[in-house]
Amino acid sequence: MNRPTAVPTFRAIDVIRKKRDGIELSSAEIEELVRAYTQGEIPDYQVSAWLMAVVLKGMTRPETAALTDAMLHSGEVLDLSSLPVKKVDKHSTGGVGDKTSLVLAPLAAAAGIAVPMISGRGLGHTGGTLDKLEAIPGFNVNLHVAEFRRVLEVCGCAMIGQTAEIAPADRKLYALRDVTGTVESPYLICASIMSKKLAEGIDALVLDVKTGSGAFMKSESDAVFLAELMVETGERMGKQMVALITDMDQPLGNMIGNALEVVEVVEVLRGDGPDDLRELCIELGGWMLHLGGVCHTVADGKRQSAKLISSGKALEKFREMVELQGGDARVIDDATRLPQARHILQVTSAKAGYLASIQCEQVGSACVILGGGRERKEDSVDPAVGIVLHKKVGDRVAAGEPLATIYYNAEERAARARQLIAASCDVTDTAPLTKRPLIHRVIGKSGEKN
Amino acid sequence: MNRPTAVPTFRAIDVIRKKRDGIELSSAEIEELVRAYTQGEIPDYQVSAWLMAVVLKGMTRPETAALTDAMLHSGEVLDLSSLPVKKVDKHSTGGVGDKTSLVLAPLAAAAGIAVPMISGRGLGHTGGTLDKLEAIPGFNVNLHVAEFRRVLEVCGCAMIGQTAEIAPADRKLYALRDVTGTVESPYLICASIMSKKLAEGIDALVLDVKTGSGAFMKSESDAVFLAELMVETGERMGKQMVALITDMDQPLGNMIGNALEVVEVVEVLRGDGPDDLRELCIELGGWMLHLGGVCHTVADGKRQSAKLISSGKALEKFREMVELQGGDARVIDDATRLPQARHILQVTSAKAGYLASIQCEQVGSACVILGGGRERKEDSVDPAVGIVLHKKVGDRVAAGEPLATIYYNAEERAARARQLIAASCDVTDTAPLTKRPLIHRVIGKSGEKN
Repeated sequence: MNRPTAVPTFRAIDVIRKKRDGIELSSAEIEELVRAYTQGEIPDYQVSAWLMAVVLKGMTRPETAALTDAMLHSGEVLDLSSLPVKKVDKHSTGGVGDKTSLVLAPLAAAAGIAVPMISGRGLGHTGGTLDKLEAIPGFNVNLHVAEFRRVLEVCGCAMIGQTAEIAPADRKLYALRDVTGTVESPYLICASIMSKKLAEGIDALVLDVKTGSGAFMKSESDAVFLAELMVETGERMGKQMVALITDMDQPLGNMIGNALEVVEVVEVLRGDGPDDLRELCIELGGWMLHLGGVCHTVADGKRQSAKLISSGKALEKFREMVELQGGDARVIDDATRLPQARHILQVTSAKAGYLASIQCEQVGSACVILGGGRERKEDSVDPAVGIVLHKKVGDRVAAGEPLATIYYNAEERAARARQLIAASCDVTDTAPLTKRPLIHRVIGKSGEKN
Repeated sequence: MNRPTAVPTFRAIDVIRKKRDGIELSSAEIEELVRAYTQGEIPDYQVSAWLMAVVLKGMTRPETAALTDAMLHSGEVLDLSSLPVKKVDKHSTGGVGDKTSLVLAPLAAAAGIAVPMISGRGLGHTGGTLDKLEAIPGFNVNLHVAEFRRVLEVCGCAMIGQTAEIAPADRKLYALRDVTGTVESPYLICASIMSKKLAEGIDALVLDVKTGSGAFMKSESDAVFLAELMVETGERMGKQMVALITDMDQPLGNMIGNALEVVEVVEVLRGDGPDDLRELCIELGGWMLHLGGVCHTVADGKRQSAKLISSGKALEKFREMVELQGGDARVIDDATRLPQARHILQVTSAKAGYLASIQCEQVGSACVILGGGRERKEDSVDPAVGIVLHKKVGDRVAAGEPLATIYYNAEERAARARQLIAASCDVTDTAPLTKRPLIHRVIGKSGEKN
């Protein structure tokens, strides 16, 4: 058609076609797509076609940053500039037994950094920070922004769930991705995570990208790809970024289940607890302190993190936050005040040998079966149930020795969980030859002294 | 999750994910997807994601046949088994000046074949058979199935538009594809065309797949790919199939515009008319007669087609059909009874030389500008307007000699159309070295004697 002048109107169909054909979208196009969709001006069926084209055709770095930025600015972005310290957060891509957030928020706050942490709930085999916090009687994760800010100002850290004001585009897009087979795209995952995290008004972000049988990214190359994408996207948006690729081929720590994980958090904050969990907290804490400007090097940050634990300052900060958010801080000194399962059941090894591997995702699923996690978003969780592992990969096991203890409230569920855990543990005659490292790799800031 | 038994329920999300990941879908999955979508049990946003995955990942031959079959059986399939002759149709992928259907339906019927032709309207630069038929005063393309069958029984051919009963899945899917950037997939195009054509209850189908600047498939390789797909799909479903790849790099015949094209149809049926149009009608007619079992070879079919024209039998059949469908058959002998444009305007050549090429799609668009075609589905058309070309590619042109005559009703539109046609015609000093053939290739039945 011989149109006299080009009409510069935005049409969703043009943006879908461009992405389908592998043509890079402009920031303006992505911004308008996200804005119009969030405001209900574009129907779901056009956006789902676009999302599938993104899954199959990918995105460039500028496109990924533009999408993140558009989603970030679809809602409120916290302005924490009145706080005279650096704002640093940590985000994990999720796994089994991953309770580092509950250690790290108070630890970094004890070092003088502000940690405005907005977290999620568990889904499928992975646990969620909010569920763990809610195992503490009275703990309120639904603070309004004003209350969140007040807790942050008073004690330096606060931990809440996503509010309706934060990144509404992500909420709407995620709900659509969930039902259209478009969750599995590193570009969309990156934009979803980063838009919410950057809405916290932070200066720096430490990413813990999990890899292994219990992680969302099973292969290390997928984990590295996502980590690089998030680091570059954050840096493009003016944030200090680092990502650690860490192991999730077996559960982190020994305890899985919400109340049990709070117990283990307190252990670590007392300088005790399992080696892998303590080591990862020190490592991530070192990076938070370094990016937060309180330590010159990451190594200094790690030493300082260890000191904040041994001095009891991190634990006191945790106590302070729990009280400020309405929780019963007495659970710290008396774990019996946490929800208790009525029964326990041992999972024993049928034979002697070495624990060669644990199917980590299945252990997480066993916790879901017990009622400690969610199959669907609308499910409720039982905070009391869970699993305590007695062996880590590489450990020697005697015949009949307990591999794990199940804390349960329903007999039939316990039986299914036991079967699943037993099947997840591979006991072999000889010790595994190699041990997977806890920290696989550091992405970004790699030139820095560790 | 440790599900004790697999639950064999259909979930759209699983089918989307499989297609996204390049896994072949079963016939049962495709059938259920189409059925559930047509009945409103699956939302648009899931199907559009699936359609985009099909566009980008393609389909296997069995998947394409399953989709065609599911769409075909979403509605009524005509049972013409009571007619004691073979039922054969012809379908063109669309172009500019393509009026062969109006010649071929009566021609094949005159040979004793039944032609139950269900056609479409013009959209964009391409014309539509229904619009051409409706240029004949009184001609009714909206017959009910019973009336359609009666006309078919009486005269051997009938030409109508799609009814609500035929392939409702295609109507619903096409509307969604149109707004989600998922029209451009040979698999989806094949299923859309074939499901409607096979609903006619035919035994054989001759496909005219156009290639060149005025075709939907600009490149010959795309046209061949689609043709092979349609031939194989039809054969899998037990139909006799052939596809001719034919030229659409310049308009077919000389006349473009609905009433004008009826004039040219009558010319061809009188044994007159432009060479290319007449030749293509004879060629396609030859295949229809051959597949319809009235001629042993295609060459016999072509000879027989020429005879049916020269004897006047094809024209008499056309007259009979026009009358049976309520049209004013006097237009055959008196073209002034067709809608007449009020004004004409010449498009002359600025220089002497040879017509080297015509931008065919732009000539089609010029007809749309005049009001003779549709920009959008809901537009109405003016049957009287159009274009008569005086030169074909390769013809010698004198300076100031008319290249085309515009038949118009609105001054401003005529001016724009003239500009566009003038720009579409490339006049060079020397004659073009090669001439594109009218028939590029025959797909399927290639072993047959031509």
